[in-house]
Amino acid sequence: MNAAVRAAVRAAVYHGAEPWAIRSGYAGLLEGRIDPLTPRDVSNIIQRGGTILGTSRSKEFATDEGRAKAARILKDQGIDSLVIIGGNGSFRGAAALASEYDFKIAGIPGTIDNDIGGTHLTLGFDTAVNVAVDAIDRLRDTAASLDRIFVVEVMGRDCGALAVASAIAGGAEDFLIPEEDFDTEHLKNTVRVAAERGKKSMIIVVAEGDQSGGAHAVANLVRQAVDGDVRETVLGHVQRGGTPTAFDRILGSRMGVKAIAELAAGNSGFMVGFARGGPVETCALECSWQEPLPLDPELMRLREILAL
Amino acid sequence: MNAAVRAAVRAAVYHGAEPWAIRSGYAGLLEGRIDPLTPRDVSNIIQRGGTILGTSRSKEFATDEGRAKAARILKDQGIDSLVIIGGNGSFRGAAALASEYDFKIAGIPGTIDNDIGGTHLTLGFDTAVNVAVDAIDRLRDTAASLDRIFVVEVMGRDCGALAVASAIAGGAEDFLIPEEDFDTEHLKNTVRVAAERGKKSMIIVVAEGDQSGGAHAVANLVRQAVDGDVRETVLGHVQRGGTPTAFDRILGSRMGVKAIAELAAGNSGFMVGFARGGPVETCALECSWQEPLPLDPELMRLREILAL
Amino acid sequence: MNAAVRAAVRAAVYHGAEPWAIRSGYAGLLEGRIDPLTPRDVSNIIQRGGTILGTSRSKEFATDEGRAKAARILKDQGIDSLVIIGGNGSFRGAAALASEYDFKIAGIPGTIDNDIGGTHLTLGFDTAVNVAVDAIDRLRDTAASLDRIFVVEVMGRDCGALAVASAIAGGAEDFLIPEEDFDTEHLKNTVRVAAERGKKSMIIVVAEGDQSGGAHAVANLVRQAVDGDVRETVLGHVQRGGTPTAFDRILGSRMGVKAIAELAAGNSGFMVGFARGGPVETCALECSWQEPLPLDPELMRLREILAL
Amino acid sequence: MNAAVRAAVRAAVYHGAEPWAIRSGYAGLLEGRIDPLTPRDVSNIIQRGGTILGTSRSKEFATDEGRAKAARILKDQGIDSLVIIGGNGSFRGAAALASEYDFKIAGIPGTIDNDIGGTHLTLGFDTAVNVAVDAIDRLRDTAASLDRIFVVEVMGRDCGALAVASAIAGGAEDFLIPEEDFDTEHLKNTVRVAAERGKKSMIIVVAEGDQSGGAHAVANLVRQAVDGDVRETVLGHVQRGGTPTAFDRILGSRMGVKAIAELAAGNSGFMVGFARGGPVETCALECSWQEPLPLDPELMRLREILAL
Repeated sequence: MNAAVRAAVRAAVYHGAEPWAIRSGYAGLLEGRIDPLTPRDVSNIIQRGGTILGTSRSKEFATDEGRAKAARILKDQGIDSLVIIGGNGSFRGAAALASEYDFKIAGIPGTIDNDIGGTHLTLGFDTAVNVAVDAIDRLRDTAASLDRIFVVEVMGRDCGALAVASAIAGGAEDFLIPEEDFDTEHLKNTVRVAAERGKKSMIIVVAEGDQSGGAHAVANLVRQAVDGDVRETVLGHVQRGGTPTAFDRILGSRMGVKAIAELAAGNSGFMVGFARGGPVETCALECSWQEPLPLDPELMRLREILAL
Repeated sequence: MNAAVRAAVRAAVYHGAEPWAIRSGYAGLLEGRIDPLTPRDVSNIIQRGGTILGTSRSKEFATDEGRAKAARILKDQGIDSLVIIGGNGSFRGAAALASEYDFKIAGIPGTIDNDIGGTHLTLGFDTAVNVAVDAIDRLRDTAASLDRIFVVEVMGRDCGALAVASAIAGGAEDFLIPEEDFDTEHLKNTVRVAAERGKKSMIIVVAEGDQSGGAHAVANLVRQAVDGDVRETVLGHVQRGGTPTAFDRILGSRMGVKAIAELAAGNSGFMVGFARGGPVETCALECSWQEPLPLDPELMRLREILAL
Repeated sequence: MNAAVRAAVRAAVYHGAEPWAIRSGYAGLLEGRIDPLTPRDVSNIIQRGGTILGTSRSKEFATDEGRAKAARILKDQGIDSLVIIGGNGSFRGAAALASEYDFKIAGIPGTIDNDIGGTHLTLGFDTAVNVAVDAIDRLRDTAASLDRIFVVEVMGRDCGALAVASAIAGGAEDFLIPEEDFDTEHLKNTVRVAAERGKKSMIIVVAEGDQSGGAHAVANLVRQAVDGDVRETVLGHVQRGGTPTAFDRILGSRMGVKAIAELAAGNSGFMVGFARGGPVETCALECSWQEPLPLDPELMRLREILAL
Repeated sequence: MNAAVRAAVRAAVYHGAEPWAIRSGYAGLLEGRIDPLTPRDVSNIIQRGGTILGTSRSKEFATDEGRAKAARILKDQGIDSLVIIGGNGSFRGAAALASEYDFKIAGIPGTIDNDIGGTHLTLGFDTAVNVAVDAIDRLRDTAASLDRIFVVEVMGRDCGALAVASAIAGGAEDFLIPEEDFDTEHLKNTVRVAAERGKKSMIIVVAEGDQSGGAHAVANLVRQAVDGDVRETVLGHVQRGGTPTAFDRILGSRMGVKAIAELAAGNSGFMVGFARGGPVETCALECSWQEPLPLDPELMRLREILAL
């Protein structure tokens, strides 16, 4: 998220606007924790996990009185446009504020669950996948040394994206996700077949919101299906935070710049998103010795803005 | 690359084919270093850097006699289709072999430079960017502590993709790439302006093939422009190898499966590629609280193949 | 552990002995899973987590009949000396075997809990501490962004070494360990005082064997003491495995070489250990510009053995 | 280093003193860049590379006038004791200041070369070793895939400690260090013998100050000795910075606390140091099932100071 903050601040200055930080989300806004941010203030933050701005949940902001107070604080400060980094809840609050009090708003989707409509990727997802895969790699070391079966629970209440990606990248044998009906027999059969093929160690990834009930329930089912040493582990809060990947830093940079550019062009009420490149495609082998495709012109344009 | 090897082996078995390993590339092929690969042989390799198959360069394979010998060895072994992971040179050799001796071939683009036409991303690029960014993060720690300017040379003889991505993700002040004309005055001006803005430490990323001549030449120019402690560093061979990122493992998995699926469908002479998702886009904020987009069906289908 | 395996194999050849691998511990021994290991077989394994030899628990080996069978299998194979990497249980089994059937044995202490008498450090401890600290770093990112209190449970049933080290290196506010009596009021007071000092986010590390009952129980107590968002997380199995640290690789290398050297000198029934350097000491500032102390001669001697 | 800063600040408050930060070393001192540091100011820094205080070199401080000015600035600020983190040069300057103007001083040895007398380990050394080993791991991936020989140059002008440690932990075939006479024939022979033993890929580590002249010279000699693909790489500045290891954070914490405790006890003119634990030792196997040794009492005492 810090990459997006950095990019938005520098893009704002580039477009002649004056960026301010709201500390600790809506709760901080209601306490008036607002201060100016210069391009220097966001130096050397792109590599840090978490967010330098802080975040919070606020019940007060969900009330009419809360938003009225927030609007007054913002207007007193001369602020007319807001960039919100977060998920659906944050966006709904901002949309209410914008429609009631005439602010311009832009949303940047930032959740590790990748559970936001309208974009194929959310900010933080790539980092979370790599953190989960790193944990799975370690479990696989143990699994392979001890001929163990591990059931790993990753985040994802309604969305299995993190489970799917970390399972495939982690070389897991199967994954269980909320988007699919849970089938006890299918699970048992999968582990039985794998065991018959000679697999002595296995990894099964479960999204926390899966209908199976999570790692504990799944581990018990696996124990019924095969004779082996079955262990469960819940990755939990360690999936958040940590040094962001290069991909997330670039995505955050692009999203921050885009959000400001659209606001500067007079638009409002939008979320910046990312369309996945579609399925793996084929081209004639001859394509490969033609000139490489030109660099992404959008990335090229970032340079002079981000170096502010 | 090991992710692609693993995926291709398992996909081949899934499609009823019999996968063999050619060790150490074309040189190994000419020495008859060919042996069967089972799904078990590719267990627990997805997380390893390098390639379990080995690689090499072969002048003999570039000759008519060399390819004739290679074709004989392959036919004797009953091999009729080849999957080649590599760059343009490897693909050209395979194409010659295929057209002269009637093999079916598929190419998987695997270079860290991202310098292959017909695909937006090559296998290994994301890992290389993260390695370069990790190095830049460390340099920035030193730069910030010591008020230093670092000029960092990254790989990329003809293609600045790695330089652009690692510069943006690394929070660098500028990058110099082969695709752009080198302008001494522009460089000097950039660092002067940054210094005037109060930047005491800076990072400049140079692609090895840039017209400036690389890190050493650029560092000398920077010294002429500003008064400061300017250091140069060439990342070199450490940019290769290392635990692959989740993204590269998934990309390799997809490419390996796709290459085999296309061969199984009777196609030949193609490279699997990856179309970038285009520029960052916008959608109405309301999109964000609709249902998330469905999971990539292609990823979902990988599961039963990869778990073989 | 692979560093110790590699070192022991190469040291054995250096001393003119013939090394064999026993796969999957005592259970594998009883199944006769024994095969020769050459210095080439242990190439390129020093960086891998887990152990290439596998491990297991065996009830059969704990019986007189089991050990009789194991002794027969070993003698048939011409094996007269054993190096055991593990914990107390493994060592006791080996000691019984050695006294009953006249084998020479050496123990290498390898547990992540650092819970073995007679040595200040066990193999794997440094890696486990770094893994735990990496997780704590990520939690702190979240804690600082959200003003949260995290209670983190790390391994350590009887021994708080991992909890102490990861708490200090992770910058935690407090730790709870089995070696100390648990005092509810003291814990509550600690968090209250920290909160009064202005700490909005905190980390408390609990060893799994602590009398408090672990992370869940502690989190509940903290909730009684302060008003805040308190979360718990159990690191669990991810603390094992993973690329070993440089320190553990060197320690494993030293221990493996030492174990073999002592066996070669005719000794038996010992464990190689590591004496901690004692408390931090002081010397006159002038000492610092004298010649550095000579390099560790033991490390120097490793070179020609390990390069075999 | 930030761990030592954090520990010293909190220990100072614990002992009733008032800690101040001198920014950017002696140069910053001469510019009067001095400000108070509270325990809160050093929150959440233990995991950061570099130093939050900044550092620099100062020619002015080496002069009598410079030190007179520095002494005046310090006395005006009411500062009577200094903790210096650095190497020999920094310590000499401090000693001169102390003897001329009656300050109390403590040194904390902080260099990645481990080249300071009177201590077996310097702060930052363990981190630097792990960074170098991480790079060597990546090179080994490439070396093993391509049957290549890599010559890697690591830091160490007068001291081979970093080369020795990273070579052993990196599984290198040999290392070349300033403490030993360079013998061309011995080097050539080593690589020839290794090649004859079947090693197709090799890693040789050279300290930058080695008499051989460094990686470039050594690579040329290796090329004369064996037929193979020999590459050289200079790790350079990336060896500094980066997230510190757990060991360095604990060492820094201990050193910071110790330095302050000694000053508080009235001592001055000393450096805190670390005595290596001596060679690997042996004890009877029976020792291993006795009670583990008690935890380091010094570590235990850190708790209440560091949690300030």
